[in-house]
Amino acid sequence: KINKERLWDSLMEMAKIGPGIAGGCNRQTLTDEDAAGRALFQKWCEEAGMTMGVDTMGNMFMTRPGTDPDALPVYMGSHLDTQPTGGKYDGVLGVLGALEAVRTMNDLDIKTKHPIVIANWSNEEGTRFAPAMLASGVFAGIHEQDWAYDRVDAKGKRFGDELERIGWKGDEPVGARKMHAMLELHIEQGPILEAEGKDIGVVTHGQGLRWIQCTVTGKESHTGSTPMPMRKNAGRGLARITELVHEIAMKHQPNAVGAIGHIDVYPNSRNIIPGKVVFTVDLRSHLPEIIEAMLAEFYEKAPKLCEEIGVSLETEVVGQFDPPAFDEGLVTSIRKAAETLGYSHMDIVSGAGHDACWINDVAPTAMIMCPCVDGLSHNEAEEISPEWAAAGTDVLLHAALETAQI
Amino acid sequence: KINKERLWDSLMEMAKIGPGIAGGCNRQTLTDEDAAGRALFQKWCEEAGMTMGVDTMGNMFMTRPGTDPDALPVYMGSHLDTQPTGGKYDGVLGVLGALEAVRTMNDLDIKTKHPIVIANWSNEEGTRFAPAMLASGVFAGIHEQDWAYDRVDAKGKRFGDELERIGWKGDEPVGARKMHAMLELHIEQGPILEAEGKDIGVVTHGQGLRWIQCTVTGKESHTGSTPMPMRKNAGRGLARITELVHEIAMKHQPNAVGAIGHIDVYPNSRNIIPGKVVFTVDLRSHLPEIIEAMLAEFYEKAPKLCEEIGVSLETEVVGQFDPPAFDEGLVTSIRKAAETLGYSHMDIVSGAGHDACWINDVAPTAMIMCPCVDGLSHNEAEEISPEWAAAGTDVLLHAALETAQI
Ligand SMILES: NC(=O)NCCC(=O)O
Ligand SMILES: NC(=O)NCCC(=O)O
Repeated sequence: KINKERLWDSLMEMAKIGPGIAGGCNRQTLTDEDAAGRALFQKWCEEAGMTMGVDTMGNMFMTRPGTDPDALPVYMGSHLDTQPTGGKYDGVLGVLGALEAVRTMNDLDIKTKHPIVIANWSNEEGTRFAPAMLASGVFAGIHEQDWAYDRVDAKGKRFGDELERIGWKGDEPVGARKMHAMLELHIEQGPILEAEGKDIGVVTHGQGLRWIQCTVTGKESHTGSTPMPMRKNAGRGLARITELVHEIAMKHQPNAVGAIGHIDVYPNSRNIIPGKVVFTVDLRSHLPEIIEAMLAEFYEKAPKLCEEIGVSLETEVVGQFDPPAFDEGLVTSIRKAAETLGYSHMDIVSGAGHDACWINDVAPTAMIMCPCVDGLSHNEAEEISPEWAAAGTDVLLHAALETAQI
Repeated sequence: KINKERLWDSLMEMAKIGPGIAGGCNRQTLTDEDAAGRALFQKWCEEAGMTMGVDTMGNMFMTRPGTDPDALPVYMGSHLDTQPTGGKYDGVLGVLGALEAVRTMNDLDIKTKHPIVIANWSNEEGTRFAPAMLASGVFAGIHEQDWAYDRVDAKGKRFGDELERIGWKGDEPVGARKMHAMLELHIEQGPILEAEGKDIGVVTHGQGLRWIQCTVTGKESHTGSTPMPMRKNAGRGLARITELVHEIAMKHQPNAVGAIGHIDVYPNSRNIIPGKVVFTVDLRSHLPEIIEAMLAEFYEKAPKLCEEIGVSLETEVVGQFDPPAFDEGLVTSIRKAAETLGYSHMDIVSGAGHDACWINDVAPTAMIMCPCVDGLSHNEAEEISPEWAAAGTDVLLHAALETAQI
């Protein structure tokens, strides 16, 4: 078993970098805080005897050698970047849990045939630069690197420029590494494990996702002196689409979810009717046919809802992935590890996207989940217990050891 | 008659300070651009032989002496601040038209019994610091000066601090001046005069207004892993209230208008269900009983619409004025001036709030309007013709001369 206190101390130490305003974290990707978090992680890994590689997307790979020079490495990891008002565990547990697994291997002097590599994937959250899981997506060949470099944040800064600015653009060609397997530990970010009283979620599938960026265009004009019939209020386009997205998702729940999280209003002045509103619709399901049905309904109805009130709608897909099914062999290892260790467990579908969802396209991949309080995530109040963190990390260690062969 | 070319040149010259991105202006109150605009106006007035007074709210008063030392001054003026994506004429025409009227008096060597004062009122727009017409409101005793100083912009900067920062906090106690009368020339900001083919709007009344700042509170959580029934989506509160406000105003149109122009979403991330949305409802009518009816319906229905979806609503009135009726004697002078000069005219109600609406509480006040293209204002594409500007300024000059007595 891993060292519960050491794991927890590392989580708390990392959370001090880019602290939030309400107990969580604001360590958004490619900020100075992200750079500081990376440096601390590098230091800890080097103290554990690992060596670093960094690729041209800023993905960090920390290697613990194996006994067989020809064996491909077993990867563990997740991401250290957070939401602007994020928690201390989303992503971070998967990286520091992997580090704790390696520290435990060192303590017990365990050698593995396959090397072990801990990965910290750049820009998993996608909140500063859409889409989410950007760098693991480039690694897996889903996105072109040049396209990824050209993603811009709300201030117009490019991903590529910011990566250079913080000094974490590496030399290694992205995606060149071959993997024997990849294991990601992550908090559930939903309420199911806690409600069912289970220590461990054995993730069999993920949800697929579409992010549809919408631009509703009306006409900026004075809220006081523009007669009602002359108005082209882009804010009403947003209002109608907000309710449409909710209705579409409700039709398919519990097998689907949908909402709008990001909204920018132009020019955003109390006495100006919005001339333009830009926002992103997030629709998800683990069933491909439901995603298709939701998209069809959205593209049929949303433009009409806008047309009826004299505003126009343009849409662009800015994030998309299909529901992944994880590697059956690895899923079985995880289930077995939970059983051996005496942890209660259940099979579960991941509601969120994860780096593992992309890596699954290029290597055998699976995920382990641990509960989080009230299912709350992407919120500074995100919380887990040290026991949950330890249980997930124990399972990660055992599944990794089985996969990497002692 | 005034000098049409000189007036137009001054309008174009001022528009170069704080230029917009689409041909209009971004000269928001208490910015460096506002300071530069004020300095240019001061220079022009001093070249026209006027002397400056500045009060503790940054209101500028440029005086041309009268022949009777005991006569109270006749004020003309409006505001030089603009919306973030504003036009070149909203407010500016009233200030520079007044300057052109004085320049014409100088050209023709006209002396008046009453002094003439041109006023530039601080923060008319209210977009950076709510409410609108803040400094004329303090002048008229509607707001306390300390309260006004404490208004903050979206970045948390205080009005009082920003006024000092740009160097335009004067010594004169605000509101100490007594006025014989006040005349404000302004573009209509609506479509009526152009549609009716009239040169001049004789403003008899203004609309009353309520700005209700709403805070809808839900619960920030992950868009992917939060089951639909567990969501408290503050964005849906915004959506429902957006449509409610529209419906309420439609019931009373053409005697009322309503919209939401300003919306801030927290934390505004693509994969976070909005935990909080702050926005401002703008409701107006020139009939007090309609304002009351709209408010009653809003306060009855809006909280219920939020409650139904598990989010809460807090409201705060951040701007408010009752429909003003302007001074009958001055209104008659304006109508007479238009007639004498041979300009077509009609009586009209002002859709927007103006500094004149507050000054009307403490001195005989009236307003002159000129058409604007397509009724468009609070938009960089706001446009008027040099002929319209000149006609309005001619009427301003004649009404001022009648009031100030040659
Ligand atoms: N785990 C996580 O929050 N990933 C971000 C991508 C998503 O929105 O699902
Ligand atoms: N004239 C003008 O746009 N004033 C701003 C106050 C209002 O919103 O009516």
